Amino acid sequence: MPVPPLPRVLIEPLVRATLLEDLGRAGDITTDAIVPANQSAVGKLVARQEGVVAGLDPARLAFELIDPLIRVEVAAEDGTAVGPGTLIATLSGPARGLLTAERTALNFLGHLSGIATATASIVAAVRATKTKVVCTRKTTPCLRAVQKYAVRCGGGANHRFGLDDAMLIKDNHVALAGGVREALQRARAAAGHLVKIELEVDTLAQLEEALAEGVDAVLLDNMTPDQLGKAVAMVAGRAITEASGRITPHTAPAIAAAGVDLVSVGWITHSAAVLDIGLDFEP
Amino acid sequence: MPVPPLPRVLIEPLVRATLLEDLGRAGDITTDAIVPANQSAVGKLVARQEGVVAGLDPARLAFELIDPLIRVEVAAEDGTAVGPGTLIATLSGPARGLLTAERTALNFLGHLSGIATATASIVAAVRATKTKVVCTRKTTPCLRAVQKYAVRCGGGANHRFGLDDAMLIKDNHVALAGGVREALQRARAAAGHLVKIELEVDTLAQLEEALAEGVDAVLLDNMTPDQLGKAVAMVAGRAITEASGRITPHTAPAIAAAGVDLVSVGWITHSAAVLDIGLDFEP
Amino acid sequence: MPVPPLPRVLIEPLVRATLLEDLGRAGDITTDAIVPANQSAVGKLVARQEGVVAGLDPARLAFELIDPLIRVEVAAEDGTAVGPGTLIATLSGPARGLLTAERTALNFLGHLSGIATATASIVAAVRATKTKVVCTRKTTPCLRAVQKYAVRCGGGANHRFGLDDAMLIKDNHVALAGGVREALQRARAAAGHLVKIELEVDTLAQLEEALAEGVDAVLLDNMTPDQLGKAVAMVAGRAITEASGRITPHTAPAIAAAGVDLVSVGWITHSAAVLDIGLDFEP
Amino acid sequence: MPVPPLPRVLIEPLVRATLLEDLGRAGDITTDAIVPANQSAVGKLVARQEGVVAGLDPARLAFELIDPLIRVEVAAEDGTAVGPGTLIATLSGPARGLLTAERTALNFLGHLSGIATATASIVAAVRATKTKVVCTRKTTPCLRAVQKYAVRCGGGANHRFGLDDAMLIKDNHVALAGGVREALQRARAAAGHLVKIELEVDTLAQLEEALAEGVDAVLLDNMTPDQLGKAVAMVAGRAITEASGRITPHTAPAIAAAGVDLVSVGWITHSAAVLDIGLDFEP
Amino acid sequence: MPVPPLPRVLIEPLVRATLLEDLGRAGDITTDAIVPANQSAVGKLVARQEGVVAGLDPARLAFELIDPLIRVEVAAEDGTAVGPGTLIATLSGPARGLLTAERTALNFLGHLSGIATATASIVAAVRATKTKVVCTRKTTPCLRAVQKYAVRCGGGANHRFGLDDAMLIKDNHVALAGGVREALQRARAAAGHLVKIELEVDTLAQLEEALAEGVDAVLLDNMTPDQLGKAVAMVAGRAITEASGRITPHTAPAIAAAGVDLVSVGWITHSAAVLDIGLDFEP
Amino acid sequence: MPVPPLPRVLIEPLVRATLLEDLGRAGDITTDAIVPANQSAVGKLVARQEGVVAGLDPARLAFELIDPLIRVEVAAEDGTAVGPGTLIATLSGPARGLLTAERTALNFLGHLSGIATATASIVAAVRATKTKVVCTRKTTPCLRAVQKYAVRCGGGANHRFGLDDAMLIKDNHVALAGGVREALQRARAAAGHLVKIELEVDTLAQLEEALAEGVDAVLLDNMTPDQLGKAVAMVAGRAITEASGRITPHTAPAIAAAGVDLVSVGWITHSAAVLDIGLDFEP
Repeated sequence: MPVPPLPRVLIEPLVRATLLEDLGRAGDITTDAIVPANQSAVGKLVARQEGVVAGLDPARLAFELIDPLIRVEVAAEDGTAVGPGTLIATLSGPARGLLTAERTALNFLGHLSGIATATASIVAAVRATKTKVVCTRKTTPCLRAVQKYAVRCGGGANHRFGLDDAMLIKDNHVALAGGVREALQRARAAAGHLVKIELEVDTLAQLEEALAEGVDAVLLDNMTPDQLGKAVAMVAGRAITEASGRITPHTAPAIAAAGVDLVSVGWITHSAAVLDIGLDFEP
Repeated sequence: MPVPPLPRVLIEPLVRATLLEDLGRAGDITTDAIVPANQSAVGKLVARQEGVVAGLDPARLAFELIDPLIRVEVAAEDGTAVGPGTLIATLSGPARGLLTAERTALNFLGHLSGIATATASIVAAVRATKTKVVCTRKTTPCLRAVQKYAVRCGGGANHRFGLDDAMLIKDNHVALAGGVREALQRARAAAGHLVKIELEVDTLAQLEEALAEGVDAVLLDNMTPDQLGKAVAMVAGRAITEASGRITPHTAPAIAAAGVDLVSVGWITHSAAVLDIGLDFEP
Repeated sequence: MPVPPLPRVLIEPLVRATLLEDLGRAGDITTDAIVPANQSAVGKLVARQEGVVAGLDPARLAFELIDPLIRVEVAAEDGTAVGPGTLIATLSGPARGLLTAERTALNFLGHLSGIATATASIVAAVRATKTKVVCTRKTTPCLRAVQKYAVRCGGGANHRFGLDDAMLIKDNHVALAGGVREALQRARAAAGHLVKIELEVDTLAQLEEALAEGVDAVLLDNMTPDQLGKAVAMVAGRAITEASGRITPHTAPAIAAAGVDLVSVGWITHSAAVLDIGLDFEP
Repeated sequence: MPVPPLPRVLIEPLVRATLLEDLGRAGDITTDAIVPANQSAVGKLVARQEGVVAGLDPARLAFELIDPLIRVEVAAEDGTAVGPGTLIATLSGPARGLLTAERTALNFLGHLSGIATATASIVAAVRATKTKVVCTRKTTPCLRAVQKYAVRCGGGANHRFGLDDAMLIKDNHVALAGGVREALQRARAAAGHLVKIELEVDTLAQLEEALAEGVDAVLLDNMTPDQLGKAVAMVAGRAITEASGRITPHTAPAIAAAGVDLVSVGWITHSAAVLDIGLDFEP
Repeated sequence: MPVPPLPRVLIEPLVRATLLEDLGRAGDITTDAIVPANQSAVGKLVARQEGVVAGLDPARLAFELIDPLIRVEVAAEDGTAVGPGTLIATLSGPARGLLTAERTALNFLGHLSGIATATASIVAAVRATKTKVVCTRKTTPCLRAVQKYAVRCGGGANHRFGLDDAMLIKDNHVALAGGVREALQRARAAAGHLVKIELEVDTLAQLEEALAEGVDAVLLDNMTPDQLGKAVAMVAGRAITEASGRITPHTAPAIAAAGVDLVSVGWITHSAAVLDIGLDFEP
Repeated sequence: MPVPPLPRVLIEPLVRATLLEDLGRAGDITTDAIVPANQSAVGKLVARQEGVVAGLDPARLAFELIDPLIRVEVAAEDGTAVGPGTLIATLSGPARGLLTAERTALNFLGHLSGIATATASIVAAVRATKTKVVCTRKTTPCLRAVQKYAVRCGGGANHRFGLDDAMLIKDNHVALAGGVREALQRARAAAGHLVKIELEVDTLAQLEEALAEGVDAVLLDNMTPDQLGKAVAMVAGRAITEASGRITPHTAPAIAAAGVDLVSVGWITHSAAVLDIGLDFEP
């Protein structure tokens, strides 16, 4: 099934704000000066490197908000793997609008496709296992909803969306509470019935304490595959196991092979390079 | 001179929006459940790798907007080079607020410091020359103002801020106008007296045409150092020369040595990895 | 522990918008005409009936945003039970500001205290059991975050905050999926690891199917206490049980006595009457 | 004549904000997981109890903003009396959109119809007299414009919309001014020529003073029908007479029979229960 | 009594928006380049011509929002008559902030003082009569609240604030209704009890019809002083009389002498020249 | 070439805000009361005096946002010279919407056409020379983008759009820097390669210093035509020359004849009277 799109009401404010930061107070003065209003053009969004597409909706919206006469025909939907030269979409309509919206559209498309591509690289690395790839809250300011969507396009799953939709008890919480047990008890007392509780554990001793107290998921931070294997054995299905800490396509296979349910990866949202996508105008 | 800060009115809406996307509709349910309201804490923002700091103002604002009782004492201001273990700032105040604002503050600080660090890596590579490093409009949606600020923190300079503050005539404009000369004439007729005009040229023939017509700056796209050297010689000071196209710390020295005034680099804004900065709570 | 407050960044936009809809384009023309700028006053927020307080933060913010010189001294914090005549807070400062912000402050305080009071009435009715009271998404437009907070002040817990933080499979979802099993399988395939899945069941046959497939919670809609008792027995701890459907302080005890973990009640948010609270100026 | 609708520019921001608080950062994860994108459905908005409809415009807008392909055919317009089973509107289109927008649409429709219904209950109680029913500024935060509209749908009229469109001199104003006369004189000196002045009076002595000074309307607060009758006689047409204070369908007839021009009722906006309206999907 | 100020919550969004349109995406690049961060300065707001001050609150807010360390000491409050050289306020604090906020502050102050000054010129022209000066809805986009406030500073009064706070039946309404009588009857049936009704009349025949039907105020458009005198005599105190149509300080005395209660003047809001006010830095 | 329009995303927020300040909380109560929903009308926007049209896009948008059924047929586009009686546009559609949006549309159209007309008056005065007319940052709050657009419609050009798109070194900057040379050196060190630097000079000595140091443009403030002529001779093409200071259609010819490249005029944006345009309904 294709990744369900985000509702337009959710992404439109973002696209409008992004257009406005580019248009400034006078709009596209270069294009307005050089290109006559009645000139038409056809452009093709083409991938220049291998990756996974994400962000066609905000890109399309950028063109549509600049000029509703621009038509966008999508060839490779969000979630599609592309390579150098793959046609992603064909744009046609007033040349001015195409040029004015181009950079905003490409900034969305490149950024989100970059995240989908990075995600897919980890997903591919753990394909032989049952391990899933999830993102974190280490996202770029103002872009959480769309970045998490891009992770889904890359085949990943989402961790918490924010501070309010699940409990994640970190080392500092444990320290301030005075121990794993106390922290878990306080959390359980406050958690709603549809709120899961995850606990970050740094040692197997903490893990034992957590399992004794009961917890939905454990975040095994910065453990070696060997330690992870022991932790998974200790958990024995009583909690979801998540490994984190500098996971790359290179290190992921061994970590996943340790049997964890999930690997969580911060860099796919905060440090993914853009996917290089160009807009080629037809002569 | 330290990099002049952005006015608070300009960054506050961004910080508020970013906090809201993390707080959701219930706030930090983990911290609220576990940490008593009257507990205090002290935390230290510490660099975990080498780089350049940028983004302390939005980070500080995130803490202040969550709890005005939190005090932030800065040790390494924006623009400072840091290494693993360098103290950037000390935070003290209510523990709840420190934990609730932590991720938003770090997301700003890590992202912008990553851009400053990437910029600094190119700046260092061309230090032996008179060449300046500038950014592009290939920025992350909604973040142009702060990303361009981070470039300045890294020692770079800024290209256009948007479509409206300078004219940059690209290949598509030239094609639609029917030639370099026609494009330049239309641009000059429309440009305000404080608006500079830059033209992208792909060949030395185009460059000759541009110089004949007169232009403030030329963007020499994807040329080899050798071609760039010829172009600089042809220009002979009649226009500012800017080289662009996949410039890295590795390729930059040769490009700069060709004598261009500027190298413009897209990836320092669109693809820089975050700078790893942690918030360590004192025991 | 007192109910943790919502962050100010979350409620301030709401309070500003509410003040603006009352101030219109000219402000408080009556007070400005009649009360001199330098006149001071002292007022007391006093309960006129029995209930539970909620909403002091937005009320205080209304006064503060109109005039930062107004001082608010709280006597009965959010979550406190009050009766006719109980002092809730003492306000002092410029008389103009007190009168101008009065209605906005009281509208927040009365509305949210009404919800807390309604919640408390159900909580009291099921006190003899282990059953918790939860709210629904049947909230008043634009007020979800603060209404859910008021439920917490009344001793209730929160159900989902929105469409995105847990899965609740309703009868229409089941019908469109073609059955309970299919719906649950699709949900589980898509759900993140911190997302719980709840299913609405109308019959014990559906319940059996759900338990066979596995589910975190079941919503037993419009069942009699007798049916609920059978359902709870069938579930036997394998899922959280939630009863819903026209639950009142009168019907709640029998429903809770059937052994369900939760009763969910829509009217505490969508139909609670305000708690009558007055602002009495001292002579 | 049907109640004139509010302009879309006025209600659209409210509907967008309400959708966003329900969609959160990921949208309707249950529906997206279970219902295929190409599935269609037909649903009927049906009243489950007796009342008066209000709020079809925001409800329709909620569906339209989620999916413009959804068609809404209205059977019972705003202001129409309905009973259990009355069809209010038929919805058809993509099943996902119908389910995603359902709760937001129903929250608007139920809330505003509840207000219209409450208003209509008082209007019916005073039908035998010339007395009109008006609302107050005791409205729910952020919803004043739509709640006042719902009052009109229920056959009521509107009092002031805010602090700026008429003068209402309350007891505290009188106290701070040092008397009825002084308050009225100050008010008249400041009032624009299209601004009416109303004064709250608690005693017949105050009323006499007000009439001597001249006033457009008097608010007779918490008087018995007998006192109201005397007040109306004293006024003798020289001012509009408005009775207020715990007016219910039960007490309203006697109060209206005392001859007042208006009864003003706070609970129809701040404490009306929702009208139960369901969305039934066709099999 | 000084003109009561507009609440800060009402003007702050306007000042923030105005600062942002001047700061753009990089702030005050000239000042940041030239003036060191630690340099202080003292500046004086001084009138350069005769007029009436209005707009000190938004001006002060502009400085405060740019740098809270700037101190503003007001010498001539809103509503004060000034002449060339009159000191209006002294500013002191960081030089950068003073220069950055200067233009925004002056744009508010000059614009609103221009309106106050224009208003005062008409007020002075009719001083010998009982006629008041009122403004219209012919205001500059986005600025209605502050422009109406400036009219009050100039000694004028306000007409309607918008389409919703009073009824003004214009010639087109009459034409569409089919006559003065029908229009007035429809208006009265719909008007709330605190809503006044004014009717525009172009002929004495229409006036007679309006008076027969009853109306709160009549707008006598484009009549000569002679016609106005006749109209006032016909009205004989049964309605407020307002004259409009190209009223200037030159024509106003004769029009006022005709006995009308009000003259309404559009140009004082839509066409007033700014009052020339400078910011002189101390050497 | 017609003046390129501003993108709709840029002006729509302004038009929405302006409609909302007129609609208030109840909309157009006069029209709603008097005009039936199904009544249609045709209106003509007609110039009542000589001038230049600007602002048809926001005017059209005002009608469209109130009722998308209203059709606007433009007869005289932005930038067209009109005289008394010239048809500007024909409007047809629902009478209610036409009346409700009328004032907002006219306020935009009159204000912006007034600016275009004022600009054109100076442009005409210098037509015999090569001098261009430019505007300043002395604009009305919130309206910079549209006012600068109106200047273009009147045949003028734009100066800086804000503090961030060019450097303008004023007398106070020079004073704080300690001299022209120092100020220019600091500016050049900080300016981006597409940022021009202009310096305000009050004396020929300062001009000499500036030319020696190098500068893109000089602002010759409050000089006589004679002084200007000397300054132009001194500059000898090494910088753009701009004259400013109380320039009117009367004084402009002599100033332009002195040979300056530009005259900059503040009053065309801050003090232009509206162009009188009416909306005449067809009988």
